[in-house]
Amino acid sequence: MPLQQSEILEKIAMVRPGGDTLEDNERFSKQIEFIVEIDKLKHVERQSALCDGTRQENDPEHSWHIATMAMLFMEYANEKVDQLRVIKMLLIHDLVEIYAGDTFAYDMIGNSTKEKREKEAAKKIFGLLPQDQAEEMIELWNEFESLSSPEARFASALDKLQPLILSFHNKGWSWKKHGVVSSQIVESKKEMAEGSESLWEYAKRLIKESIDGGFLVKG
Amino acid sequence: MPLQQSEILEKIAMVRPGGDTLEDNERFSKQIEFIVEIDKLKHVERQSALCDGTRQENDPEHSWHIATMAMLFMEYANEKVDQLRVIKMLLIHDLVEIYAGDTFAYDMIGNSTKEKREKEAAKKIFGLLPQDQAEEMIELWNEFESLSSPEARFASALDKLQPLILSFHNKGWSWKKHGVVSSQIVESKKEMAEGSESLWEYAKRLIKESIDGGFLVKG
Repeated sequence: MPLQQSEILEKIAMVRPGGDTLEDNERFSKQIEFIVEIDKLKHVERQSALCDGTRQENDPEHSWHIATMAMLFMEYANEKVDQLRVIKMLLIHDLVEIYAGDTFAYDMIGNSTKEKREKEAAKKIFGLLPQDQAEEMIELWNEFESLSSPEARFASALDKLQPLILSFHNKGWSWKKHGVVSSQIVESKKEMAEGSESLWEYAKRLIKESIDGGFLVKG
Repeated sequence: MPLQQSEILEKIAMVRPGGDTLEDNERFSKQIEFIVEIDKLKHVERQSALCDGTRQENDPEHSWHIATMAMLFMEYANEKVDQLRVIKMLLIHDLVEIYAGDTFAYDMIGNSTKEKREKEAAKKIFGLLPQDQAEEMIELWNEFESLSSPEARFASALDKLQPLILSFHNKGWSWKKHGVVSSQIVESKKEMAEGSESLWEYAKRLIKESIDGGFLVKG
């Protein structure tokens, strides 16, 4: 008689190879539970479409893209930043959306409840981890959300630039879909300047060229 | 008359805000071209299905998942490793598949030509970058492929463990689809021990429990 998956998980949770105390087993089991739970982020769709406009991208794809940008764009940060910390923030910044969903930057109602929903989600998702790692993750996430360090401000600039690059290449796929006009984009992106003035200059150029190109309504 | 996208790109390529020499413009333009090109990785599907078995995952989702694992599993590396270097390798290790495609670990014919195809692809994709960054990326990729450092061996262990975790949770979705038996999995994963003996012990446990659970054929 094959075992039920729950029974299998229970058996595995008791074994942390290399460790031999119960604490060790519990620790590894929590880490694995987290890794399995965050697989759900692959179902969270964003409003931005891929550069070729064939479909919307999802959160892990976006997170991977901006973490890779952080490997290459360090030279454009306003201040000297710790690259590892930037990349860590970018890898985990959207995990709260497993429970809170993706809130479109131009959705006024959704944005009014976003903070509360995401704080609860952060507790839930990071709370799966062993305490020391849960604390590290929550600290990284809070820092990113509050833009309270040069790393957070630079990470946030990349987070805001990437969908603009996609939208420029797919000629405003999501802007057209949602009737977004240029002033809304400027408003939601202008904070980029706090992390990277030069990338913000580039972002403004993309916005202008999108208007000139006829796929973003000036307004 | 709206501009053509090619004209817009040309105009943008000439502007690197913050920089004012032609070298600077060229550098930024190359970096952006790379960031746009790697968007194509989102179309490269892997053989592994998500934990819930609803669909196959793609390369950026997988890369994000293992980079996040690297944030949490450092304590299981055999040797002390540089976390930033591990994460960088994981973020870029699959980029060659934009041109070379994903080769299933158990595809004997595909694997016989994999090395040549991927080397050419690496030249092509990383060659888009400014020379210093192209060199850094190729070095990281070669190191990962040749398992020539503790970082590469640990990164590779995570790369091999993650699809096993997915397959365990979706009860062997891809194993059943491709008729894979347990000895093939052991054969393709055993190198994990060079990066992390304890994660390899856990992998063996997952394989055994999959057999016991009735969703992996022993053979």
